[in-house]
Amino acid sequence: MTQIEPAAIGGGRSRRGGRAGHEQRRQPLQRPWAQPRLRYPPTQVLSADELESIHVASLRVLAEIGMDFLDAGARDMLRSAGAQVEAGSERVRFEPGMVVETIRTAPPSFTLHARNPEHHLEIGGDRIAFGTVGSAPNVADLDRGRRVGNRADFQNLVRLAQMLNTVHFFAGYPVEPVDVHASIRHLDAIHDLLTLADKPIHAYSLGRRRNLDALEMVRIARGVDEATLDREPSIFTVINSSSPLRLDAPMIHGILEYSARNQVIVMTPFTLAGAMAPVTIAGALAQQNAEALAGIVLTQVVRPGAPVVYGGFTSNVDMQSGAPAFGTPEYMRAAMAGGQLARRYGLPYRSSNVCAANAIDAQAAYESVFSLWGAVMGGVNMVMHGAGWMEGGLHAGFEKMILDAELLQMVAAFLEPIETDEDSLGFDAVREVGPGGHFFGAAHTQARFRTAFHKPMLSDWRNYESWQEAGSPEAAGKANRVWKELLASYERPAIDPAVADELTAFVERRKAEGGVPTDF
Amino acid sequence: MTQIEPAAIGGGRSRRGGRAGHEQRRQPLQRPWAQPRLRYPPTQVLSADELESIHVASLRVLAEIGMDFLDAGARDMLRSAGAQVEAGSERVRFEPGMVVETIRTAPPSFTLHARNPEHHLEIGGDRIAFGTVGSAPNVADLDRGRRVGNRADFQNLVRLAQMLNTVHFFAGYPVEPVDVHASIRHLDAIHDLLTLADKPIHAYSLGRRRNLDALEMVRIARGVDEATLDREPSIFTVINSSSPLRLDAPMIHGILEYSARNQVIVMTPFTLAGAMAPVTIAGALAQQNAEALAGIVLTQVVRPGAPVVYGGFTSNVDMQSGAPAFGTPEYMRAAMAGGQLARRYGLPYRSSNVCAANAIDAQAAYESVFSLWGAVMGGVNMVMHGAGWMEGGLHAGFEKMILDAELLQMVAAFLEPIETDEDSLGFDAVREVGPGGHFFGAAHTQARFRTAFHKPMLSDWRNYESWQEAGSPEAAGKANRVWKELLASYERPAIDPAVADELTAFVERRKAEGGVPTDF
Repeated sequence: MTQIEPAAIGGGRSRRGGRAGHEQRRQPLQRPWAQPRLRYPPTQVLSADELESIHVASLRVLAEIGMDFLDAGARDMLRSAGAQVEAGSERVRFEPGMVVETIRTAPPSFTLHARNPEHHLEIGGDRIAFGTVGSAPNVADLDRGRRVGNRADFQNLVRLAQMLNTVHFFAGYPVEPVDVHASIRHLDAIHDLLTLADKPIHAYSLGRRRNLDALEMVRIARGVDEATLDREPSIFTVINSSSPLRLDAPMIHGILEYSARNQVIVMTPFTLAGAMAPVTIAGALAQQNAEALAGIVLTQVVRPGAPVVYGGFTSNVDMQSGAPAFGTPEYMRAAMAGGQLARRYGLPYRSSNVCAANAIDAQAAYESVFSLWGAVMGGVNMVMHGAGWMEGGLHAGFEKMILDAELLQMVAAFLEPIETDEDSLGFDAVREVGPGGHFFGAAHTQARFRTAFHKPMLSDWRNYESWQEAGSPEAAGKANRVWKELLASYERPAIDPAVADELTAFVERRKAEGGVPTDF
Repeated sequence: MTQIEPAAIGGGRSRRGGRAGHEQRRQPLQRPWAQPRLRYPPTQVLSADELESIHVASLRVLAEIGMDFLDAGARDMLRSAGAQVEAGSERVRFEPGMVVETIRTAPPSFTLHARNPEHHLEIGGDRIAFGTVGSAPNVADLDRGRRVGNRADFQNLVRLAQMLNTVHFFAGYPVEPVDVHASIRHLDAIHDLLTLADKPIHAYSLGRRRNLDALEMVRIARGVDEATLDREPSIFTVINSSSPLRLDAPMIHGILEYSARNQVIVMTPFTLAGAMAPVTIAGALAQQNAEALAGIVLTQVVRPGAPVVYGGFTSNVDMQSGAPAFGTPEYMRAAMAGGQLARRYGLPYRSSNVCAANAIDAQAAYESVFSLWGAVMGGVNMVMHGAGWMEGGLHAGFEKMILDAELLQMVAAFLEPIETDEDSLGFDAVREVGPGGHFFGAAHTQARFRTAFHKPMLSDWRNYESWQEAGSPEAAGKANRVWKELLASYERPAIDPAVADELTAFVERRKAEGGVPTDF
């Protein structure tokens, strides 16, 4: 494991003149950009028989109950592919054999291309990629509290995510830039994502025109032609079923348009047990699986071999209030079982780093780590909402993005192999030190101590007295300082000026055309 | 999974008269007393070859470097058993074959008996037991801050732990009752543990006299004779080596006296990588394993078949300050590798729930959950410091005990199997609700919702507006309220009056004798 020294950030800006040197030593340290790998078998919370029973139950749901597809064209395509479409209805039923055969063409892994080739991601196998929070309607930080999403905060969260090496992709808009009119919001937001950052991005599937705009902007940003874009997945969209058992028109169009272009579908039923799915984990998983398989079938009917990720988002609600709960024991088990289902079909797996907490407190941390435990040990490949998600997704938090980045760094370091070569086993060091000695001065220690251990960007390891003298700071306050330091040191990633001009020209032309007309 | 309703605590004591009903609904809920089980294979962070290389390296340490045993009697016993004792030295060396053969008699699992038979614990196999924090010199809560350990706080922590169903045993004194003179401290403290609570206890190995007192008090409390005590492990002691490679006299006496009586040794090297052990994880583990095996050998030389637990406590230090760090990525991997080593020898495994945080903040939570992740997925059987550990063990926290109890409850719920019987799969519920409906009113939901999901004692799942109206409470403040409610509802567990009298008489007699003379 290696650590990189941070850019010299913040130190010069310290308002505590005399302690600048001290402060400088405490600047956030980051691991280098890399995708972690899960090198050992994921946890199997379901036996082979139990997994099979959920698989079989979900196929029975698709065969006997079916799923509503709210688009006639999609129903026609599914009928041609062998599904049963009920006359005069949106209901589509699938024979088990048809489902299993059709999804067989989906690839087990693929490359998700970024504008910056160094940020391409391998999705699948034992590789893990962490994304930002996506789609929060509100945003919060400790200084200004919670407020409605807006473009300035959107841009700052994008800049932060660009700065954080453990954040690998944008899982949508970290916060919705509500102050940009909906007719042109996708143009400005995607322009920001592609120019303030250079990591892989997500586009919302909100109608054909927006989908085509996103594809064209990504093509321009990557500087490739249409044929190359068709060969190289370069954007992804999350398709949520309207659980239970319905796929709405804009979601269907996302599959039709992105799968046709060989772009990435992350098919994710929103199955909250007790609300949109049965109150049992097994029941919610069976329904999740039915909905996911139905969507995945459509991707492969549209274009056999199109990349698609199996998404699991099963959690539970608080049965008293109906409020969704996240990072719960039920969530963890569902996340792990979801991974088993995805692997059963040979598909990459998507899970999330989520919490229900309203504040950057112990709850925010433990719900998030439990979510990550479920995801990572469940064999996740894409972690949506990896950094910044608060309040069940209702706000994106600046401090939470830093807290999560620390968690993701720790997970990445945990996933590093234990080196057991002769020198790592340290026999000579033990002999040198011997009984009763200590290792601080040993040659073995001196040669390795700088990079031996994960260095935190957030954790405070000072002794109680020093910590108290410093004003008894808590993690949330430290995170507040860290995100400001990171933002202050932000530098826009390089971009070919011709590409930048072409992107800007595209956005201006489409805005001049009125963007995508809305009725508001 | 079932939930029990709490005793009706706190509601009547609410200072917010009009909201008593509301408050009552929010009282802490607890799972019933039960030992969780890890039903699936632990995570293998080491391949079979890597595990073997650590095993071999540790045997080489014992054979070529050896370990200092600071007691002549123990050295004689080890010599008789086949070890090489260096003349005129405390150094003992062990041939690999002797180590492997000698530890073979240690049992893979055993029952740790409590005063209350309902609180007996199975130690080993796939069973997990969670203990309190142990041995903190200081104590803290939000109202009074941090202070030196004292008997009043000690007693309150004991009462709290007794009330918490997910706390299965006492891992020593939750906080050191420093205001009780050392000559009689063990008498008062063990008397408190055995009368304020009825769960299995730990005794410190601080000389023969104290060890015998502890044994006699546990015998009296359990109401059994000496022969029964010899058959039934009823107390445990943690034996720490003075890493590197030294076992001090009081620790050795603990093994001699407790193993002779068939009581439980938890053999735990204190191998902080970079300080008392090599700076590499593999090196620290090799040294941990050497020290653990040497101690385990002694237990089996003293009494073949005596119960002994393999303890792992390998973590790392902050190489800038030398401060120990806990819940780090290195800690997690070492915890999992420790489990693999324990299982290689067919021994129960001990790990811990630890953190370096000074405050009940996000750091306290994430370091603890990462520790639990390492322990639980590492196949732990005994979790020391499961509830209440703060600041690298330097203080016990009242709020942390509640926070940890929530974490332990969540872990226990996570470890419940996913039920996949026909009714759990919920096909009929999905058919009843159908596409576009919701499950709140479904018969399947109505029949199960009360016990379907884990109910938190700490997590706040209110929506942002309600939460803000309530004053934006954070987890630490809620934990403060919960421990006070629990303490207020504390009831002393039943005890046979004759046993209580005998215990008191024993303590009084031993105090009259001066306890254990000290030179201070």
